[in-house]
Amino acid sequence: MTTIGTTMQASVLHGVGDVRLEEVALPTVDRDQVLVRVEAVGVCGSDVHYFHEGRIGSFVVERPLVLGHESAGTIVAVGADVDDDRVGQRVSIEPQRACRHCDQCKHGRYNLCTEMEFYATPPIDGAFAEYAAIQADYAHPIPDSMSIEAAALCEPLSVGVWANQKAGTAPGGSVLIAGAGPIGIVATQVARAFGATRVVVSDPVAERREVALRFGATEVVDPMATDIAEAGYEVDAFIDASGAEPAIRAGIHAVAPAGTVVLVGMGADDVRLPVSRIQNRELHVTGVFRYANTWPVAIRLIESGLVDVDALVTGRFGLDQVPDALAAATRPETLKAVVVPTSGTP
Amino acid sequence: MTTIGTTMQASVLHGVGDVRLEEVALPTVDRDQVLVRVEAVGVCGSDVHYFHEGRIGSFVVERPLVLGHESAGTIVAVGADVDDDRVGQRVSIEPQRACRHCDQCKHGRYNLCTEMEFYATPPIDGAFAEYAAIQADYAHPIPDSMSIEAAALCEPLSVGVWANQKAGTAPGGSVLIAGAGPIGIVATQVARAFGATRVVVSDPVAERREVALRFGATEVVDPMATDIAEAGYEVDAFIDASGAEPAIRAGIHAVAPAGTVVLVGMGADDVRLPVSRIQNRELHVTGVFRYANTWPVAIRLIESGLVDVDALVTGRFGLDQVPDALAAATRPETLKAVVVPTSGTP
Amino acid sequence: MTTIGTTMQASVLHGVGDVRLEEVALPTVDRDQVLVRVEAVGVCGSDVHYFHEGRIGSFVVERPLVLGHESAGTIVAVGADVDDDRVGQRVSIEPQRACRHCDQCKHGRYNLCTEMEFYATPPIDGAFAEYAAIQADYAHPIPDSMSIEAAALCEPLSVGVWANQKAGTAPGGSVLIAGAGPIGIVATQVARAFGATRVVVSDPVAERREVALRFGATEVVDPMATDIAEAGYEVDAFIDASGAEPAIRAGIHAVAPAGTVVLVGMGADDVRLPVSRIQNRELHVTGVFRYANTWPVAIRLIESGLVDVDALVTGRFGLDQVPDALAAATRPETLKAVVVPTSGTP
Amino acid sequence: MTTIGTTMQASVLHGVGDVRLEEVALPTVDRDQVLVRVEAVGVCGSDVHYFHEGRIGSFVVERPLVLGHESAGTIVAVGADVDDDRVGQRVSIEPQRACRHCDQCKHGRYNLCTEMEFYATPPIDGAFAEYAAIQADYAHPIPDSMSIEAAALCEPLSVGVWANQKAGTAPGGSVLIAGAGPIGIVATQVARAFGATRVVVSDPVAERREVALRFGATEVVDPMATDIAEAGYEVDAFIDASGAEPAIRAGIHAVAPAGTVVLVGMGADDVRLPVSRIQNRELHVTGVFRYANTWPVAIRLIESGLVDVDALVTGRFGLDQVPDALAAATRPETLKAVVVPTSGTP
Repeated sequence: MTTIGTTMQASVLHGVGDVRLEEVALPTVDRDQVLVRVEAVGVCGSDVHYFHEGRIGSFVVERPLVLGHESAGTIVAVGADVDDDRVGQRVSIEPQRACRHCDQCKHGRYNLCTEMEFYATPPIDGAFAEYAAIQADYAHPIPDSMSIEAAALCEPLSVGVWANQKAGTAPGGSVLIAGAGPIGIVATQVARAFGATRVVVSDPVAERREVALRFGATEVVDPMATDIAEAGYEVDAFIDASGAEPAIRAGIHAVAPAGTVVLVGMGADDVRLPVSRIQNRELHVTGVFRYANTWPVAIRLIESGLVDVDALVTGRFGLDQVPDALAAATRPETLKAVVVPTSGTP
Repeated sequence: MTTIGTTMQASVLHGVGDVRLEEVALPTVDRDQVLVRVEAVGVCGSDVHYFHEGRIGSFVVERPLVLGHESAGTIVAVGADVDDDRVGQRVSIEPQRACRHCDQCKHGRYNLCTEMEFYATPPIDGAFAEYAAIQADYAHPIPDSMSIEAAALCEPLSVGVWANQKAGTAPGGSVLIAGAGPIGIVATQVARAFGATRVVVSDPVAERREVALRFGATEVVDPMATDIAEAGYEVDAFIDASGAEPAIRAGIHAVAPAGTVVLVGMGADDVRLPVSRIQNRELHVTGVFRYANTWPVAIRLIESGLVDVDALVTGRFGLDQVPDALAAATRPETLKAVVVPTSGTP
Repeated sequence: MTTIGTTMQASVLHGVGDVRLEEVALPTVDRDQVLVRVEAVGVCGSDVHYFHEGRIGSFVVERPLVLGHESAGTIVAVGADVDDDRVGQRVSIEPQRACRHCDQCKHGRYNLCTEMEFYATPPIDGAFAEYAAIQADYAHPIPDSMSIEAAALCEPLSVGVWANQKAGTAPGGSVLIAGAGPIGIVATQVARAFGATRVVVSDPVAERREVALRFGATEVVDPMATDIAEAGYEVDAFIDASGAEPAIRAGIHAVAPAGTVVLVGMGADDVRLPVSRIQNRELHVTGVFRYANTWPVAIRLIESGLVDVDALVTGRFGLDQVPDALAAATRPETLKAVVVPTSGTP
Repeated sequence: MTTIGTTMQASVLHGVGDVRLEEVALPTVDRDQVLVRVEAVGVCGSDVHYFHEGRIGSFVVERPLVLGHESAGTIVAVGADVDDDRVGQRVSIEPQRACRHCDQCKHGRYNLCTEMEFYATPPIDGAFAEYAAIQADYAHPIPDSMSIEAAALCEPLSVGVWANQKAGTAPGGSVLIAGAGPIGIVATQVARAFGATRVVVSDPVAERREVALRFGATEVVDPMATDIAEAGYEVDAFIDASGAEPAIRAGIHAVAPAGTVVLVGMGADDVRLPVSRIQNRELHVTGVFRYANTWPVAIRLIESGLVDVDALVTGRFGLDQVPDALAAATRPETLKAVVVPTSGTP
């Protein structure tokens, strides 16, 4: 193991559109934490949003913030309560820290903990940096066969896993997914891995529909050309990864009686929903807020080949190229831009 | 048993506001049906609605229709496949006839059967009549201790049971119920019977809030005076029995993370819902469409004294007074008007 | 369509070891039934058992009985209530007839109907015959791409589907399956189709373990060489397809806390179970009795290629060779013997 | 607040039958713990068992041990991370300490945590002492209206809550409970609080059956006089609080198809179960190991009057009378003996 200093390089957001590579203090490592040398970080839409808007809803960037929360790397140090043997272990980071004591945590719904600290969500720093600290049990060991990029992408994959778990996606079942961006694509892959035999993906962009077919959609539909509400789909579940009111409304009409609607995409606070349809068909509508207990599943799905997240990577950037990575993430041909803070060979 | 003729008296809706007492043909009794001499029928808001508007949504009164679907009485004849011993049995009528062959029926969700025939829903006649026919297994025997009016009110009680089952109302749990009309009141009673220790009922009318307290609410709230969305209720479940958009929106904000929202009241087809709240708290939103398999529960709740539906009856009317009964049902002091087609002593 | 006479050829069990090909009356077709020309019937262990023992538990062969319940063919006639268009349709037969009126049926658990009539279970005839009658909704249409043998094997596949549904087999999950006979093999295939990434199959016979690996087991174990109870498997679920007390006991010890045990194999009425283990780990133990609502799933799993039941067929026999088929079914190298009552080309 | 010294009085088990009142060191209070002055401790059958046998299964008393785990009192000091305001708060102690980091804990099943430390289970001390330390979130505040004895009895009440939650006890439902000892009696009360309208309690002792009737049983049965397996009960759920093989076997036979069996009583490691019955009726058999997340429910059930645990107390003993309390606990007329370590008025 190399010597670790007291500072590190990090890409810091100082204000709207103002990201700088800087020397900052190494993260503190609490008793129950590990320090991870970060080797891959996926760029998420939320990173782009903070960069351009300085806020997401009630979360406002009020002091310098390190973005990036889809990350993986190698453990280089451990806190007092953690087994030394973990140093050197390659891990995927589940970027959250719940209180473990509240009612939600103790019921196993730690993602709903009201004291949650989440990477790259003000005021908690993320992983566009050489090192990051995380609770030992949220640093999930990965098999040797898994690439470090795939390990980083366990995070968006977890969103797809959680969405499909909430959707009750079942073998032989059918799912409609609105939006073929990165989340729609992982949701599609996971739906197939869960045994769904009909996975319809809707997106108005032809190129994205092509990508959806490549990643497992059994059929695709252009919502500009087909009235999805009237097309008689009668799917078991609808997963919205678009956040768009028309897509949500149409999708709800496509669900069979007693079916499920999972709202993943974020858009307006309020959406006009077809409540009489929800009532007459006794549909179940819910949303997802991050995920809980998904990493073990995500890792096994990748390891077994049931999903392929390596194929999502469309570009790699150094820690000094974070602005370029954020720009790339907004381009339609990008599925997943990855920042590589360290080489992984200290 | 008295001789039954080939005709009977029935109260027939001929058009908006036009109900007439007439001699009509006795209902046909299929092999798997029984004929019930009707002794009590509760008046439902939907009866009033058909009387005044001639339609509910896509259901339009296009030919003469007998209203009334909250009914009970005594079996006077049976079809070929039904045991003769059932003649003389006092029964509560579950007023629906599902196909029993479709996917929904075979999964136990027969209320979602697309071929459902339901009393007093065009073109199916209801029970404001001397006799009504029903499938033998939907004529639920009642104990001697139960009044025939209570038997009729198993129908609205079933709505309350189904709503609370969907809400997951649990012992020690908390429920907010919006609207203290007849459905809100039965939902309140059932919530308490299910062991909920906090049942908050909201209604803008002071008299109705008083009634709610009488029937088991642990607290009441005037939504005109208190901002329910901001009051910090954090209930496990919210049951809307109002159909009003402001009540629905406020109620959703009152639910704790991972809680449930059940939409019972019918109002506009579309309602603007706080979707980001549903997502951030992973709330479960659903609606109810009638009920399935609730009668045995409803009967036992009445029999055991856990709920009191006899106390809901605020007026009784003969078959020739159906217009008066319909009028009474719209008055705020009315909880449940009951039509008494036959005396029950042939 | 060819003319259908009033009689047909059937293979009839007259007593222990006494099966005869005979001319018998064509089955009656009720209003809600269809008549199927039978083109493939798998041989099940229960057929063999009735042939050799004349009974299974309380079901005793007391009059001549047609065996065979894993069947498929083509609809050649329909009852009065069934659409004529179904004539000519290739169907897989779900060989049960529930009452549709009892509490179990109305809750969607029709397999637990106490008035169930099931093919090849005394006194109900099965499908080792040229024709068989079945309720229209239990004659499941199959896609053109599916072989008629695969259609027949939807029946054992359904056992595997139901077992895995009860086991809660989940993507990324782990399952231990005891017994690599036909049911163990379909359970293995289904577990993989459900996304399980670890499927351990135990069987004392090396050849069967080889078969298990061929059909998707990720690992196999010889229970004679490895103490499964002590091997630290900690699987999410254990499916017993052996019926053997030692296998059941060991399997229960292999399940992780809060895991599930599904008993499929039939053996002794009573089995000594490690109850303190079930308590201390809060395991869930259940059994399966046939299946409900599995055919649509089974058909889609075959159609999509997620499971391969054609590969289970190890021998074909004419209707006059039923004794040979029954004999073949007991040989270890046999996975599934299939009887071909008619050629399928009238 | 009085000054707390560095030692306290405790009743210490030194070996089989050897309990001594001694001055011992005050418990250490960790950062996330509180120190509770103990004012009431119920005597449990496990305390009696350790006293007489020195072990329960694999848990062996190898060094001096303080018994007692049904406890309540007043917070007198708090650890560094706990709000000072909690000093003076009356609390019921949930006597367990889970790791909060393992897979079971993070799924909300903390009772199955393999690193669990539980009061009065070797080598963890219990509450037959003047003071006890507990994690802050496991010291549950109680309302002023609740007696400190009732607060202590939240522990056995939690067993009844957990058992009924596992049993799926539902409003209008039916439950058979075997064994009318303290656990059977709380299970009975809880079953009624959960809305069950038929609660049958079996016990061979007439006095205990009388007690069961007093605490809410709707009927009682003497298993020596009635063959429960053959009596046609067909209950929704069976809760065994006896640990006796004949009771367990008979109870399983009394459960309706698709019903539930919850094994609470501890007896032999192995029990011969009617597996074919479990299979043919698709029964769900499980066990309970302590409880998780039951305290809030237990407190509300007591507060609302739905259960009455004060009435269970049949005797009170000082800290110097623990041997008498343990002796009393074995007498049939005792429901719950309570040890009162401190007066509660410092």
